[in-house]
Amino acid sequence: MTVRYTLDVSTSSFTSFTKVLFRWRASLWKSVFQDLLCWLLLYSILSCVYRFALADWQQEIFEDAVAFAYKYTDFIPLTFMLGFYVSLVVNRWWDMFLNIGWIDNPSLYVSAYIEGTDKKGRMIRRNIVRYLVLVQALIFRDISVTVRKRFPTLDSLEAAGLMSVEEKKTLLDVDSPNAKYWVPVQWAYFLIREARQEGRIKSDHAVQELFDKLGEFRAGLGKLACYDFVPIPLVYTQVVILTVRCYFIICLMGRQYVHTTRHINVNSMVDYYIPMMTIIQFVFYVGWLKVAEALLNPFGEDDDDFEVNWFLDRNLQVGLTVVDDAVTKQPPLKKDVFWA
Amino acid sequence: MTVRYTLDVSTSSFTSFTKVLFRWRASLWKSVFQDLLCWLLLYSILSCVYRFALADWQQEIFEDAVAFAYKYTDFIPLTFMLGFYVSLVVNRWWDMFLNIGWIDNPSLYVSAYIEGTDKKGRMIRRNIVRYLVLVQALIFRDISVTVRKRFPTLDSLEAAGLMSVEEKKTLLDVDSPNAKYWVPVQWAYFLIREARQEGRIKSDHAVQELFDKLGEFRAGLGKLACYDFVPIPLVYTQVVILTVRCYFIICLMGRQYVHTTRHINVNSMVDYYIPMMTIIQFVFYVGWLKVAEALLNPFGEDDDDFEVNWFLDRNLQVGLTVVDDAVTKQPPLKKDVFWA
Amino acid sequence: MTVRYTLDVSTSSFTSFTKVLFRWRASLWKSVFQDLLCWLLLYSILSCVYRFALADWQQEIFEDAVAFAYKYTDFIPLTFMLGFYVSLVVNRWWDMFLNIGWIDNPSLYVSAYIEGTDKKGRMIRRNIVRYLVLVQALIFRDISVTVRKRFPTLDSLEAAGLMSVEEKKTLLDVDSPNAKYWVPVQWAYFLIREARQEGRIKSDHAVQELFDKLGEFRAGLGKLACYDFVPIPLVYTQVVILTVRCYFIICLMGRQYVHTTRHINVNSMVDYYIPMMTIIQFVFYVGWLKVAEALLNPFGEDDDDFEVNWFLDRNLQVGLTVVDDAVTKQPPLKKDVFWA
Amino acid sequence: MTVRYTLDVSTSSFTSFTKVLFRWRASLWKSVFQDLLCWLLLYSILSCVYRFALADWQQEIFEDAVAFAYKYTDFIPLTFMLGFYVSLVVNRWWDMFLNIGWIDNPSLYVSAYIEGTDKKGRMIRRNIVRYLVLVQALIFRDISVTVRKRFPTLDSLEAAGLMSVEEKKTLLDVDSPNAKYWVPVQWAYFLIREARQEGRIKSDHAVQELFDKLGEFRAGLGKLACYDFVPIPLVYTQVVILTVRCYFIICLMGRQYVHTTRHINVNSMVDYYIPMMTIIQFVFYVGWLKVAEALLNPFGEDDDDFEVNWFLDRNLQVGLTVVDDAVTKQPPLKKDVFWA
Amino acid sequence: MTVRYTLDVSTSSFTSFTKVLFRWRASLWKSVFQDLLCWLLLYSILSCVYRFALADWQQEIFEDAVAFAYKYTDFIPLTFMLGFYVSLVVNRWWDMFLNIGWIDNPSLYVSAYIEGTDKKGRMIRRNIVRYLVLVQALIFRDISVTVRKRFPTLDSLEAAGLMSVEEKKTLLDVDSPNAKYWVPVQWAYFLIREARQEGRIKSDHAVQELFDKLGEFRAGLGKLACYDFVPIPLVYTQVVILTVRCYFIICLMGRQYVHTTRHINVNSMVDYYIPMMTIIQFVFYVGWLKVAEALLNPFGEDDDDFEVNWFLDRNLQVGLTVVDDAVTKQPPLKKDVFWA
Repeated sequence: MTVRYTLDVSTSSFTSFTKVLFRWRASLWKSVFQDLLCWLLLYSILSCVYRFALADWQQEIFEDAVAFAYKYTDFIPLTFMLGFYVSLVVNRWWDMFLNIGWIDNPSLYVSAYIEGTDKKGRMIRRNIVRYLVLVQALIFRDISVTVRKRFPTLDSLEAAGLMSVEEKKTLLDVDSPNAKYWVPVQWAYFLIREARQEGRIKSDHAVQELFDKLGEFRAGLGKLACYDFVPIPLVYTQVVILTVRCYFIICLMGRQYVHTTRHINVNSMVDYYIPMMTIIQFVFYVGWLKVAEALLNPFGEDDDDFEVNWFLDRNLQVGLTVVDDAVTKQPPLKKDVFWA
Repeated sequence: MTVRYTLDVSTSSFTSFTKVLFRWRASLWKSVFQDLLCWLLLYSILSCVYRFALADWQQEIFEDAVAFAYKYTDFIPLTFMLGFYVSLVVNRWWDMFLNIGWIDNPSLYVSAYIEGTDKKGRMIRRNIVRYLVLVQALIFRDISVTVRKRFPTLDSLEAAGLMSVEEKKTLLDVDSPNAKYWVPVQWAYFLIREARQEGRIKSDHAVQELFDKLGEFRAGLGKLACYDFVPIPLVYTQVVILTVRCYFIICLMGRQYVHTTRHINVNSMVDYYIPMMTIIQFVFYVGWLKVAEALLNPFGEDDDDFEVNWFLDRNLQVGLTVVDDAVTKQPPLKKDVFWA
Repeated sequence: MTVRYTLDVSTSSFTSFTKVLFRWRASLWKSVFQDLLCWLLLYSILSCVYRFALADWQQEIFEDAVAFAYKYTDFIPLTFMLGFYVSLVVNRWWDMFLNIGWIDNPSLYVSAYIEGTDKKGRMIRRNIVRYLVLVQALIFRDISVTVRKRFPTLDSLEAAGLMSVEEKKTLLDVDSPNAKYWVPVQWAYFLIREARQEGRIKSDHAVQELFDKLGEFRAGLGKLACYDFVPIPLVYTQVVILTVRCYFIICLMGRQYVHTTRHINVNSMVDYYIPMMTIIQFVFYVGWLKVAEALLNPFGEDDDDFEVNWFLDRNLQVGLTVVDDAVTKQPPLKKDVFWA
Repeated sequence: MTVRYTLDVSTSSFTSFTKVLFRWRASLWKSVFQDLLCWLLLYSILSCVYRFALADWQQEIFEDAVAFAYKYTDFIPLTFMLGFYVSLVVNRWWDMFLNIGWIDNPSLYVSAYIEGTDKKGRMIRRNIVRYLVLVQALIFRDISVTVRKRFPTLDSLEAAGLMSVEEKKTLLDVDSPNAKYWVPVQWAYFLIREARQEGRIKSDHAVQELFDKLGEFRAGLGKLACYDFVPIPLVYTQVVILTVRCYFIICLMGRQYVHTTRHINVNSMVDYYIPMMTIIQFVFYVGWLKVAEALLNPFGEDDDDFEVNWFLDRNLQVGLTVVDDAVTKQPPLKKDVFWA
Repeated sequence: MTVRYTLDVSTSSFTSFTKVLFRWRASLWKSVFQDLLCWLLLYSILSCVYRFALADWQQEIFEDAVAFAYKYTDFIPLTFMLGFYVSLVVNRWWDMFLNIGWIDNPSLYVSAYIEGTDKKGRMIRRNIVRYLVLVQALIFRDISVTVRKRFPTLDSLEAAGLMSVEEKKTLLDVDSPNAKYWVPVQWAYFLIREARQEGRIKSDHAVQELFDKLGEFRAGLGKLACYDFVPIPLVYTQVVILTVRCYFIICLMGRQYVHTTRHINVNSMVDYYIPMMTIIQFVFYVGWLKVAEALLNPFGEDDDDFEVNWFLDRNLQVGLTVVDDAVTKQPPLKKDVFWA
């Protein structure tokens, strides 16, 4: 589930944002600390080797290498590359969220346009909503590990009540080597056509509108599949990850504190044991990268990923309520309190 | 309420923009001065310690630490990170504002499509508008602290006249563990269907249009809820806040004026007591960050946040006027003065 | 009026772009020269004080201050902040222009859908157009100083023929403490409804379309009002203006030419009297800022602001011509010259 | 005509992109070489003056000036300013292209909705298409030098067959001081209305759709006119051009190779006669600027500008074919080869 | 085929992203290694020449040249230019993908609106779908080398069953020197009109909707053709490629390890033989450029390009299934398991 902290920052004050810093779930600290510990371990080993294990002439070579590494970290364009890459990932991530598919709109239209509280009318409306959630489940299975785990097979979808035996059979009957996300949508379209023929839908306008609203729902989910189908080019992702990792591998050497008068820029007056500044840098840059890593596939299992299973349950529950239970619940028409 | 200064800058002159600088509400000064005072206090303490409390050899260590901190502030990528982050926040903020929900458009359509000045016609139109404002209030309660304070319970909404007792009962009757923002919209849809059946709406086109306009209003508000539901990933916000704070914590040491010949770059010829330049930097960077902090949750209580309570009142007042009082007020059709 | 130079740059040649440099209206030179003169004056005074008024030991302090100021100008993140801010302002400015409201589209629809060349038909069409221009005028009055000056009161709108006495009375009759931009749109909607009832409009489609086109016009203008209602957060604007100004105030000292061997980086071998490079910098940075300042409120009185009064006149003239004079002017249907 | 090189880069290989480098039309080389030669000439003159014409003490002053100029080139924020400006120009340029107006869509709708292969039916369809192309020609005349040259007067449009004598007369008859781009669109709208009245168009839907498609075409062209009407603010363009030019004027001095031990950073160990690095810089920066210059007015006469005259001819040819010749050419309805 | 790695990055962990680094297809390594080997070869040759072939005084000149080249690499604005350019290319690439044309939506509408399971009904539906795929094939032939290779002539399209002999003849009959992408769309439009006349389509709404959905499909493909027709201006692409190449050509000299005390910044204490840092830089920058190169024409033959041939086959298969086989497969209407 995406971690919400919006209410904490209602006011822009020092304390409210300090509180934000001390969260753990989906936080910078949680995502960075493992990598940081590894890095510190390696750093300490190198540091100990330098101080205790090397002879003087070896220390000199070590110091030269440090000076060399120190100088060249400047050549790695970390900030910019991360800035552009994170922008790209964040934009994709947000667009994915916008297309994740809320059942509210189509089911409101279904409830308003398809009339009748008899059994058949209810069945038509309920089935249309269920078909939409079924499409969503089918697509989520292909793009999300968590949904795939929950619904490993079509049988599990049937067991969960998302489709009946006959529907599963019909779906399997459709002869196509390609993804069949469109099949339940077609069933829904045919149900709408049927409802129109039986006069449950009053006008051709309504048919058009229903087709469009269902189509929008499907199109959004299709876009999700596209985002999965064509990710950010692998080269780009590799370049960015590699840049950050190389930078800190080089820092393992370049940020060692050495005693030497031959390299003015790496010489430190006092002997520091903890590379405070580099730790800070590590937290910033690796944290920034983690933003991208977590958002790259927001249908995964990170703390900040979309809770897709919850989405399916929610859509089914809300959709069925809208088109069935709620249609008979209408408050009486009365004057409001501002009536003049 | 967002602070307006647009009229002050009608002309791009030195004086008009100087006037902008000397505002207080929602200003840079107001948002920065507290943090700045704290920082200056800490800075002064460190400065006094160095000058009065330390022995010579301690001063040397202090100076080394200053030189060290001075050098490493360069490694913190403040500008870029802030630039990208503020861009992201500003874009979200503006999109939130665009979706905040103005009643004007739906109520104009309601007034034009649903005819009849009899009691029932007026009630239908008024109720539709009220239902829309009710949806808005329900959503605002969940995303805004100020609206939550005003309407802590459904009862308070009833007391304010936004919903009747029966409506509250019906709303609570709907059996759903999820947010029920859609319920009043459905009531409005059913009212429109009823008006069509009674012939108050003349064509199926009108029904379609009304559904769409009400749907747009609801969709905008739904998007607001989404922005609240999925904020900018916590890691990103933490990284940025931390970067800025670390920078100025390091500056506490790195920008001390010390007397030493061993560190050429931190040595200052004259003895300055006030770190003018760092104060200026502080104002810039922390001010820039405050832009992001204030906009991150624009439904809060900052000076620059949207006045959401005013919005609800305004929408109710304008909406009811449009669909009721104003429908009988139509100027006579006459020739205009340019008639040839 | 926005200054056009597009035709000058039809070809990308050295001379064509040189010509662009030597324009005066709305130019860099015009917007920068006053500020630059002030800055130069202050700079000269400081320079004279240093050379003629100070004793040797005072000169040394002066030189130290110069070296200090010189070093710290690097810490001010001018370029980035300006880059991001100007991008934001330019995007808003262009979106404002796109929503400024051209009457062409709605009036073409009005002329095509509402038939009849009798007096009443003409009155209906003309009044709809006039109402749209009236909305525009009402909104422009609130966001533009120049339109406000032209139409200080509703009476002045009446005097200009934009509304009749009865219409003014009806407008004032509408009881609402909030802006009443929607009132004339409602009148237009009711006129359309009336025309449909009288059979001047042939189909319900046409009613829907007309409502939508008029609604789009209104929505665009409403967006303009939003841009005025919620400007770029004051903090952001203040930060940017302050950054630029501080930079050049510090440059007043930091770019002085001093004779000293103690500060290698500010020492100049030859004695320059005119700070050429800083002047160039001043022109760039202040010029860049002026882009933002001029576009921040494009409805003001800068050279490059939109000529909003012209817009109103143009819309009224074109709109009335489209829906009245031009409807009877239709060329005969004949074969074209390419007829085979 | 825009120069196409997409097929050359089907594969991302060293050779394919090397081939791209060696093109001449619309290339970097073609756009840069003149400016570069001028710059080199000036550079050589200065260089010769220094080496052969100056006395020793004059040389020293020259060297000081070189050191001074060298140091200050750093202060010019070339890269960023160009980056933001080019982004802005490229976005505008691409949006202009998207709105340039392809006749295909409106003419397909015209051919499908307006039935009848008799003379009048054909005339109606042909005239509607011709009117759209006429609007395009009228607008292109005002924004493009090349179209203006081809059609200097309305008579030339008549001579080209884009309008008849009667149409020209009717157009001139419309009494309006403002641009009359809307007139032929109105004629087309009236023709559609007439076709509906005669039953050539079967439904009101079709009328609505045709109005919309024609309106979209007109709106796109209107947006082109807007881009011409409100260009990028002059100040911005001036700032960018000036920045680049000043940079290289300063480089004329700052990149001279001088023999001196007094300025360590400009001293060069070996005597270079050709400023290779500055030439490379010149090619990059001026080339980047040329991107902006060429795209600023894409309706001009640069190699990379849109071939607007070709567009008009193409639209007329394709449009007439779609609505006339092709309507009678329909392949027989037969089973396809995949029929099961 | 675009290489998918989304499932690998479900979780943001060190190992999952390390796995991403070790892929080969479409990877950084694959795209960079050839260029890198070339560069290393040249570097080694230069290095050997310096160490073994040059006399002392020649070595000095070499060292001077190295120092010179080293200093000037700073002047090349690699990072920024790449950042802005790659952003532009990635945006275009993604928009191309979004417009690549999925048959699902139009064929679902065709199947739902055009009724009848008799032979003619099936033929109409199948042909409409086939015509759309034909348009896609016609456009892909012109923008993609791989599709062109598969379908070098219209005859090959006929052989593949995409068009019949009569259709090919009709297409060739249409007399137009310009691209005839619109012809099959017109056939489809006429088929829809015929179906309406025969009563297979029940309402005028449906005709409008079908026209629109088919039109959207065509418009998307038309946009693809536009992207091919007007690529990113050649100058821009040349500037960027040249910048990167020049940078590394200069690095061939500037990053040589030389023994000299005259150039402090290029002197290295220890003798390194392998320019590790520059290799890393090479991988980053050239890899970043490769992102742009591969995406510049995503219809080519790179690993990461869209598999356009697969698209055509998929669209034909899915489209025909939707409108023919699947229309008779509708699961029975039954109560769902949540029925209360």
